[in-house]
Amino acid sequence: MKNYFSSNFKLGILGGGQLGKMLLYNTRKFDIYTCVLDATKDAPCKIACDEFHLGDLMDYQAVFNFGKQVDVLTIEIENVNVDALEDLEKEGVKVYPASKTLRTIQNKAKQKLFYVDNSIPTAPFSRFAYLSEIEDTISNGGLNFPFVWKAAQFGYDGNGVKIVRKLSDLEGLPKGECIAENLVPFKNELAVIVARNASGETKSYPVVEMEFHPEANQVEYVICPARISEDLAKKAEDVALKTSRAFHHVGLLAVEMFQTEDDQILVNEVAPRPHNSGHQTIEASYTSQFEQHLRAILDLPLGRTDSKVGGVMVNLVGAEGYTGDVFYEHIENIMKMDGVTPHIYGKKQTRPFRKMGHVTIVNEDLNEARRVAEQVKKTIKVISK
Amino acid sequence: MKNYFSSNFKLGILGGGQLGKMLLYNTRKFDIYTCVLDATKDAPCKIACDEFHLGDLMDYQAVFNFGKQVDVLTIEIENVNVDALEDLEKEGVKVYPASKTLRTIQNKAKQKLFYVDNSIPTAPFSRFAYLSEIEDTISNGGLNFPFVWKAAQFGYDGNGVKIVRKLSDLEGLPKGECIAENLVPFKNELAVIVARNASGETKSYPVVEMEFHPEANQVEYVICPARISEDLAKKAEDVALKTSRAFHHVGLLAVEMFQTEDDQILVNEVAPRPHNSGHQTIEASYTSQFEQHLRAILDLPLGRTDSKVGGVMVNLVGAEGYTGDVFYEHIENIMKMDGVTPHIYGKKQTRPFRKMGHVTIVNEDLNEARRVAEQVKKTIKVISK
Repeated sequence: MKNYFSSNFKLGILGGGQLGKMLLYNTRKFDIYTCVLDATKDAPCKIACDEFHLGDLMDYQAVFNFGKQVDVLTIEIENVNVDALEDLEKEGVKVYPASKTLRTIQNKAKQKLFYVDNSIPTAPFSRFAYLSEIEDTISNGGLNFPFVWKAAQFGYDGNGVKIVRKLSDLEGLPKGECIAENLVPFKNELAVIVARNASGETKSYPVVEMEFHPEANQVEYVICPARISEDLAKKAEDVALKTSRAFHHVGLLAVEMFQTEDDQILVNEVAPRPHNSGHQTIEASYTSQFEQHLRAILDLPLGRTDSKVGGVMVNLVGAEGYTGDVFYEHIENIMKMDGVTPHIYGKKQTRPFRKMGHVTIVNEDLNEARRVAEQVKKTIKVISK
Repeated sequence: MKNYFSSNFKLGILGGGQLGKMLLYNTRKFDIYTCVLDATKDAPCKIACDEFHLGDLMDYQAVFNFGKQVDVLTIEIENVNVDALEDLEKEGVKVYPASKTLRTIQNKAKQKLFYVDNSIPTAPFSRFAYLSEIEDTISNGGLNFPFVWKAAQFGYDGNGVKIVRKLSDLEGLPKGECIAENLVPFKNELAVIVARNASGETKSYPVVEMEFHPEANQVEYVICPARISEDLAKKAEDVALKTSRAFHHVGLLAVEMFQTEDDQILVNEVAPRPHNSGHQTIEASYTSQFEQHLRAILDLPLGRTDSKVGGVMVNLVGAEGYTGDVFYEHIENIMKMDGVTPHIYGKKQTRPFRKMGHVTIVNEDLNEARRVAEQVKKTIKVISK
């Protein structure tokens, strides 16, 4: 095994955002030399890496030239040029997640077909090359309201997803490739992060429960562990591990799932990287998801994935009605509460529902953590000055 | 209260070493703009701060000019120009620790007199302006062997300290100001870190136990919490809090103490900053010492100081007989062990007993953590290639 701690080894990261920055802090523990590629001159990662390279993540040449200089290449965002990754793999660069995995994940139609091919439970769906085909299928009686429209590509944080209850709901949607998914009534949204290193060692984090904001379709609370039965937790973990095996992924794979009304587990989507549903691991787990991702892609032994204490994460998003220079109203009041750590991402401008940071609440008693989380949510307000 | 999270606020740190680097990671959580002054071009902090300034920490003008540009100024090393700090205080810069505190701490004779003046228990001692005065006092019968010689200034990590059992042990010691301290037989070395913010809110971390390397006089293990009776822990905590009150310090104050054979607590020395005896707080405590130092000097509410799990810290020092390009032999083997996180400081060259990093071991069972710590110590070796 290569001794990363004492060599001229270089780790490359595609994307210079907040996830990359949190990953970079952990490279410092291991004294790893890091290079970051991002198209934004003042990307959050700039201050935390050894080398910052300016370039478009979707541009073949930018990604290929950057990747050629590093030993291991990883991502903090899925929307990168996969052709470049494929050619880098041929050149001997270790790319985690692999180009093949990313190609499947980048396209939601392909991702859904992958689940079907691998007998991974997922909500029934149909693929359409164009939005207009949906309208045709509805008029032919081949598709009934309500259903969930999803753009095949470039959706994130609830963008590119819409519940369609009547024909006019389709107005204004992008015209391109999409899927129509059955609207499955569910009790809970769950997630499991699976870590797998290049040698195949696999560990999974406890099942977490995600409470969503009803309007913004963004995660409002992540609760670790999920308040579900042991049987159901086992079932969710098994589905996540099966998904991980199917992808043969290296690094982290965050598997988002629905718990249906009749307690079936359906895979919604996956992310092959550190994920919003794992931020509470920094304070609550034996090994943070960021350290774990590094251990996995560097083929080091994986760390413990169980929790020291109960953890709840609250996303800090811009309040409705405020756009401009950000001000964190009452942040000092939430810091008085037990077990509260704010993580401010350093974005200078706020706008409604923009992700500006997150707050972790830890406590030996999960219910107490959840109670404090609600206080946090009621107290702090991300506004403009 | 100033909202540090949304302003043009600047935090200055004197010293660009490893402690500063760990402090800087935590400023990122709060999105604090940071400036660092250090005399070394490639200081560890350089990669983690917003502005890096080159300058000698003992130089009045360098420290004053640097300090004038920031709102709050702190240190990661005690040996800085205190006259400059005093003048910066007059100019309205918030300096934590205060120049007065640092002036007392920088000189061990003054520090000991401070304890006596404030009725803080400490080992009996005599102060000498020159080493030659010790020899005179011995020949006059005014001082008996054995005793502990300590240089009044610029000692660190066991440098500047020597047990003197016979006259010839004084040979080769620095000629300047020093103290001779009674050699007190002790069972344990203990430490308590006290946090105090500018508004006076005070919290103390649990008492830790330090096991020293018999030859190098460096801490080998830090064990949190100390395996001592509740009564004794209370006594140590009370002494630490009394010391903190006497200094009126703001920030962290690490109070190192001896537990004598008859269970008295004697203060050995203090450090007004994050300290080696608190590194395990990163993984074991609700609030890491670095986050706590920031909360304190920014006058934010202090975080919980109790532990999530038991924690043991092992210092990683260069193995005897090896000098040159560092190689961390068997580091991947310690990472297989439960609850182990290495922190590699990134120094390129090793030499015997040089501090190259530390390893934290956490476990719900402290004895198990201590057992794993011994395995860690036996397994990893910091050598040269």
